[in-house]
Amino acid sequence: MPLPKKVRIVEVGPRDGLQNEPQPISAAVKIELIERLADAGIRYIEAGSFVNPQWVPQMAGSDEVFRGIVPRPGVSYAALTPNLKGFERALAAGANEVAIFAAASETFSQKNINCSIDASLDRFAPVMAAASAASLPVRGYISCVAGCPYEGAVSADKVRQVAERLLQMGCYEISLGDTIGVGTPADIRRVIEAATQSVPIEQLAVHLHDTYGQALANIYASLEMGVAVVDSAIAGLGGCPYAKGASGNVATEDLVYMLNGLGIEHGVDLDKLLAAGRYITEQLGRESGSKVARALAQP
Amino acid sequence: MPLPKKVRIVEVGPRDGLQNEPQPISAAVKIELIERLADAGIRYIEAGSFVNPQWVPQMAGSDEVFRGIVPRPGVSYAALTPNLKGFERALAAGANEVAIFAAASETFSQKNINCSIDASLDRFAPVMAAASAASLPVRGYISCVAGCPYEGAVSADKVRQVAERLLQMGCYEISLGDTIGVGTPADIRRVIEAATQSVPIEQLAVHLHDTYGQALANIYASLEMGVAVVDSAIAGLGGCPYAKGASGNVATEDLVYMLNGLGIEHGVDLDKLLAAGRYITEQLGRESGSKVARALAQP
Repeated sequence: MPLPKKVRIVEVGPRDGLQNEPQPISAAVKIELIERLADAGIRYIEAGSFVNPQWVPQMAGSDEVFRGIVPRPGVSYAALTPNLKGFERALAAGANEVAIFAAASETFSQKNINCSIDASLDRFAPVMAAASAASLPVRGYISCVAGCPYEGAVSADKVRQVAERLLQMGCYEISLGDTIGVGTPADIRRVIEAATQSVPIEQLAVHLHDTYGQALANIYASLEMGVAVVDSAIAGLGGCPYAKGASGNVATEDLVYMLNGLGIEHGVDLDKLLAAGRYITEQLGRESGSKVARALAQP
Repeated sequence: MPLPKKVRIVEVGPRDGLQNEPQPISAAVKIELIERLADAGIRYIEAGSFVNPQWVPQMAGSDEVFRGIVPRPGVSYAALTPNLKGFERALAAGANEVAIFAAASETFSQKNINCSIDASLDRFAPVMAAASAASLPVRGYISCVAGCPYEGAVSADKVRQVAERLLQMGCYEISLGDTIGVGTPADIRRVIEAATQSVPIEQLAVHLHDTYGQALANIYASLEMGVAVVDSAIAGLGGCPYAKGASGNVATEDLVYMLNGLGIEHGVDLDKLLAAGRYITEQLGRESGSKVARALAQP
């Protein structure tokens, strides 16, 4: 199958990335990062999450972040919303898209959100209804599609079942997440093949962490299967590259570099993206998780 | 094209890797690393280089390294030999295979070995004759196949021409090197397509640096084209992951992890390989360049 001519990049750094960084980050810094990402041409930014701050203190300031963004036409500013209360906060704060999430592993679902996969999906019904009433598009995430930290192997058919359910609930797109980055291209192909039995390839995205260095190879394999939406995080935010079980997202800079080489359109300016990455890594006082950023770093 | 059932891993850490590490490494440490790599199941180890020590001080002890190895049946201990004098030293020290090298970029050839590509190949004629007389197999390397630090883009047909010449000179295998790691899967596919016009795919290997994080994606694309020999370096040795233009080889651990996931045989024990990587990174006092090694590091 020929590679897609165009890929939509879903930037998850401000949420999935910063949520997993050890130190707190001010709303002002998050807003500046989001503006820089939009300046670079990113058209989809996961800007925050309206979960209980007791669970995710890093996201406590999401109201302030959304209220501080100067919205640009054509840019989606998405919020992760675990329940109706979170959805209402996101809507009030100005999110123009929301995301819901489920696991492909029962044990992960229990440990992560304290209920079964089915129960977690049922819990999202009011969110879907409210989003529909407010005409807000809803994206669905599935975690652990290539493996679970508790169960190990995860059935591709289980991924398909959850994807089908999210589609039926009204999600316009389903992002397949290798949350712990254990998958190789063979796993990702298997998962995408299974998912496409229930969800059109045009409605599938991949969300691949680079814990084992496999993310770009997995993305390349996904592109070969026709996936044209890829999640990534500026500077590979989301996990210290040196800690055990480092779980950083694939770096947006490295993804853009590969897409440029493959001649695939994406609309992002790599130089501006690199500058946004330097900004946030300086604020965090950490090395960039992007090899492209390191290779092109100013001496 | 189906992926190969079996891949031969060419471990270049003790030579291409350590040669590019800043601090000197004793012959004893190199010998211990080589023995550990052989213990892990590696059957091809580039153990040293017999170039002028003034150019490459890190390789000054190669005689001692080769003399210190306890050779195992079925294991190739290769030496890089720039000229007849180097070949004779390698032979005397006990190398059972040698390698010659040329660039696909005229400027790189001039700056790196101070002569044209043609002149560099002519210079190897006596080495080929002596290797033939001693019944030693000769491997050929081509550098800068996906880009040159001085010229930028490199013509795939130039790569094909150099590969053809190395084959005609008697090399049994030609390793296509993305020396500065700038290539993406599109570049690597183009180069392999061109090379296979003159060299059977069975006689081609890939040698891909991970400077821009593209190496595993490029290896996956190479496997899809039928390449079944891959060069890599334990712990991604060969370039500090933090310095500008970091130029580490792809990490053998990360390659093995991907091959395991793809169900491709390689004969290497990942746990023993990880232990060999811990040994050399402790000796060097540096972080491993392998994400698999970092993810699985003991707390």
